[in-house]
Amino acid sequence: MSTTPAKQRIGLFGFGVVGQGLYDVLHRTPGLQAEVSRICVKDRFKDRPLPASSFTFHKEDILTDPHINVVVELIDDAEAAFDIVSTALRNGKSVVTANKRLVATRLQELLDIQRETGSSLLYEASTCGSIPIIRNLEEYYDNDMLSRVEGIVNGTTNYILTALHEPSSGGYASALAQAQKLGFAESDPTLDVEAFDAAFKTTIIAAHAFGVVVSPLQIVRRGITSVTPFDISIAQQQLRTIKLLSRVQLHGSGLSLLALPALTQNTSPLAGVRNEVNAVRLTAAFSDAQLLVGKGAGGGPTASAVLSDIAALRYGYRYEYKKLGQASPPVVNHDVEVAIYVRGTNDQITSIPFSIVEVDHRSSSGRYVIGHVQLDALHTSPAFLDPETFIAILPED
Amino acid sequence: MSTTPAKQRIGLFGFGVVGQGLYDVLHRTPGLQAEVSRICVKDRFKDRPLPASSFTFHKEDILTDPHINVVVELIDDAEAAFDIVSTALRNGKSVVTANKRLVATRLQELLDIQRETGSSLLYEASTCGSIPIIRNLEEYYDNDMLSRVEGIVNGTTNYILTALHEPSSGGYASALAQAQKLGFAESDPTLDVEAFDAAFKTTIIAAHAFGVVVSPLQIVRRGITSVTPFDISIAQQQLRTIKLLSRVQLHGSGLSLLALPALTQNTSPLAGVRNEVNAVRLTAAFSDAQLLVGKGAGGGPTASAVLSDIAALRYGYRYEYKKLGQASPPVVNHDVEVAIYVRGTNDQITSIPFSIVEVDHRSSSGRYVIGHVQLDALHTSPAFLDPETFIAILPED
Repeated sequence: MSTTPAKQRIGLFGFGVVGQGLYDVLHRTPGLQAEVSRICVKDRFKDRPLPASSFTFHKEDILTDPHINVVVELIDDAEAAFDIVSTALRNGKSVVTANKRLVATRLQELLDIQRETGSSLLYEASTCGSIPIIRNLEEYYDNDMLSRVEGIVNGTTNYILTALHEPSSGGYASALAQAQKLGFAESDPTLDVEAFDAAFKTTIIAAHAFGVVVSPLQIVRRGITSVTPFDISIAQQQLRTIKLLSRVQLHGSGLSLLALPALTQNTSPLAGVRNEVNAVRLTAAFSDAQLLVGKGAGGGPTASAVLSDIAALRYGYRYEYKKLGQASPPVVNHDVEVAIYVRGTNDQITSIPFSIVEVDHRSSSGRYVIGHVQLDALHTSPAFLDPETFIAILPED
Repeated sequence: MSTTPAKQRIGLFGFGVVGQGLYDVLHRTPGLQAEVSRICVKDRFKDRPLPASSFTFHKEDILTDPHINVVVELIDDAEAAFDIVSTALRNGKSVVTANKRLVATRLQELLDIQRETGSSLLYEASTCGSIPIIRNLEEYYDNDMLSRVEGIVNGTTNYILTALHEPSSGGYASALAQAQKLGFAESDPTLDVEAFDAAFKTTIIAAHAFGVVVSPLQIVRRGITSVTPFDISIAQQQLRTIKLLSRVQLHGSGLSLLALPALTQNTSPLAGVRNEVNAVRLTAAFSDAQLLVGKGAGGGPTASAVLSDIAALRYGYRYEYKKLGQASPPVVNHDVEVAIYVRGTNDQITSIPFSIVEVDHRSSSGRYVIGHVQLDALHTSPAFLDPETFIAILPED
């Protein structure tokens, strides 16, 4: 019952780990009916494992080549990537990208260009690597009345946090150094450890899960850099595990979006997701929670997601963004109560307008409070901006 | 970018837990643009929560009604279901079914009818309830060079086996009785505990994952009824957990298919899947394993999967069965070595042609052997047919 699609001729931007892995797979798998026609790279003087004729340094050589029908964008620079992706779409090419910053920060423009041109832009690799979360949200959960999508969407911070829970842990700096040594963290880890990366993915999930286009700046975001062994020990006493949680949740017609540390209960399936593994939990009205688990980053998982997008393009696949057309989309609303753990100075803790305080613990090792607060009030409190204070939500399940 | 599809008018066969749940959801969610026009039931004298005019006792009232464009088949009887489903497809209606026995045992005929008529048949609810495994295999893993799909696909046996691993367990009969009391097992549990149900699902997975249509009879199948506290204790000593495992695995151009007890390593994510929960693990060439976890059975999860299929039909969705068109499909081949645990009498154990014996344990509590054997030789050994012998494979990961 399948159709026989045309051969795919790919123009590839970027030839790092993912690009090379993708090239190798396509090259040694002729059954895929896809070949890399040209590779655009920046550095003219780098040694490369392919003949010089495979490469170009001019994006136009790909973007204006009528024989190239698929552009795969795998470069770091989100500005340059937007230029490449938008031009390729306008030139009638299908595009696959793994660039979450690009998709999250320019989503409305990318939607407009897709609608104007009719070209297809796929970006499964941008969110949770090999976990097919976008495709599942697009295809499967469209009428299933999702109430919440949450998960561990950043492998770097999950690796660091997992290490911090080991009895032998040497603290945050040492866990970060180990992650960098193993290639799980970049030399400048800011995007990951400050949860910018998680906020990008939260934005992308919100669009496909709930039909809402938000800026990553609208997400209540806070990183993990202030976590201490004391925080870990309190979490463990409470039978909880500290994770960086991305969560998009419906409350009536309101939608809250956050990327925050969380003390997940040890009985939650998310608590058991270790090291660089990612997981997404979907909660819908008529089915119990679904959990999708897989490697979230790295060359193999990312190349695998890109490959699946390329394969889908053969059959004319495009995101339908069905939920973006709904009559009454939910609106961002952070006036919702959350349970939190805060450890910090008296001044910082006092700056948080708790509605309920359940635990107020003071000892020589520090002061912490467990209590309830409105999410937006927390977001604008001085404590939230203080780099030494550690703040984490306490999920109920 | 979405189209505006016509309203769906549903003819429903069967009004048990799933049918009633589905009716309620559709009724109170007008946004779905789907209504149940007519419900065909068998028992004329049962009290029902809807007016008599909603019901009919004649299948033709639905199958020949030109206003009904979707048939949802939720009856028990696979023979009657085939008649309903095939007639509905031939009459130009789309069909959704949750009937795994129907799909698994009549798959080739159902494929032929779909091809002849162009009508769409969807059956996500047939396999692992709310886990969207078929849709993922169809849509996402089509060129990802899957090497293995395995999982816990039967909630009843997983509930019983979970109970048997508890220190307080009273043994198989008591665990089964408890499962029956809670509605996790039927009064005649044969289909579940003898792994027929798992074999049906294995058949369906094989078609969508590897493009191979097999009879459920070709699956190396064995149930859990012979498991004893002794077997559980040996598994626990080995840091393993007994599960009923469904597995379809590629070995070169050969494909092995089994539904057998397994001593899964406690470090495997499958070992931690408890009670009535299902899980599927997908292993592909270019991505690490993916795990999908969710409730596998029951009214809610099944109705949720049926609802997703109905929603997909609004947009003209149909399975493409892309892999069934491949040039060189894999062929069923059980001439592959597996590691197994066998506990039984000397005669039974001696009947198994082990190539390697790693452990041969004899004590007053019984004899067991851990060793390697060709899967087809195991399948035809007298021990495999003996209801007292317990046989389980030992997965490596």
